[in-house]
Amino acid sequence: MSDDTPGNDIWTSIRSDRPATPFASGCASRVVLDHVTSKWGVLVLASLAERPRRWGELHRHVEGISEKMLAQTLRALESDGFVLRDSHGTVPPRVDYSLTALGEELAELLIPLVRWVGENVGRTGVVLGAAS
Amino acid sequence: MSDDTPGNDIWTSIRSDRPATPFASGCASRVVLDHVTSKWGVLVLASLAERPRRWGELHRHVEGISEKMLAQTLRALESDGFVLRDSHGTVPPRVDYSLTALGEELAELLIPLVRWVGENVGRTGVVLGAAS
Repeated sequence: MSDDTPGNDIWTSIRSDRPATPFASGCASRVVLDHVTSKWGVLVLASLAERPRRWGELHRHVEGISEKMLAQTLRALESDGFVLRDSHGTVPPRVDYSLTALGEELAELLIPLVRWVGENVGRTGVVLGAAS
Repeated sequence: MSDDTPGNDIWTSIRSDRPATPFASGCASRVVLDHVTSKWGVLVLASLAERPRRWGELHRHVEGISEKMLAQTLRALESDGFVLRDSHGTVPPRVDYSLTALGEELAELLIPLVRWVGENVGRTGVVLGAAS
């Protein structure tokens, strides 16, 4: 965290002048890290990094995510400021989701990670086809 | 996944010639992504990226992780091939953990993510000090 970040002074005074670090259990940055590295958070962010998507598209693209978990994941990412929810107020309702500028910045770091895992799964100890 | 990765032929034949992608619910790459982006997986990998650590050091550095979760996280990362467990067979037992070459590759992608979250938490909607 840069020194001019609002709230940093308060935080560092509590945390003995340490900058924000997800290693500290009480640090807000751990909450953010939890969201963006949650089981579904990474995939939803990576999916929206490709292009904005509607609810149903996201639900299909991120295979296996339940409606409840998709709603919960999107709510957390929207609240963090990574995802923009655009409700058109039509009948039937149409809601588009896209990344904010902050979300785009984050996605630039997440995409290489998702790609690396996809490309290197064969080098890990996880047996192909053994995924449940 | 590159074409010369062992097992790739089998996998692509099952998944209709699609490369491994964590977006597919049945793909092994999702298991790996789950491990490396688990609540604790990221922090343990990032901690070991700094330097090899003993059990107790890890337990202190990754604040708030329970012994059970640390054991479970290390087991998964060791099984995936990211972490090396080196037991010295001494009394009292001394066990060192370090990253494998594969783990180092992964860490190069994870560290910028952890750093970004630490530096940018003030720009997110998460209120500082509100972390529990």
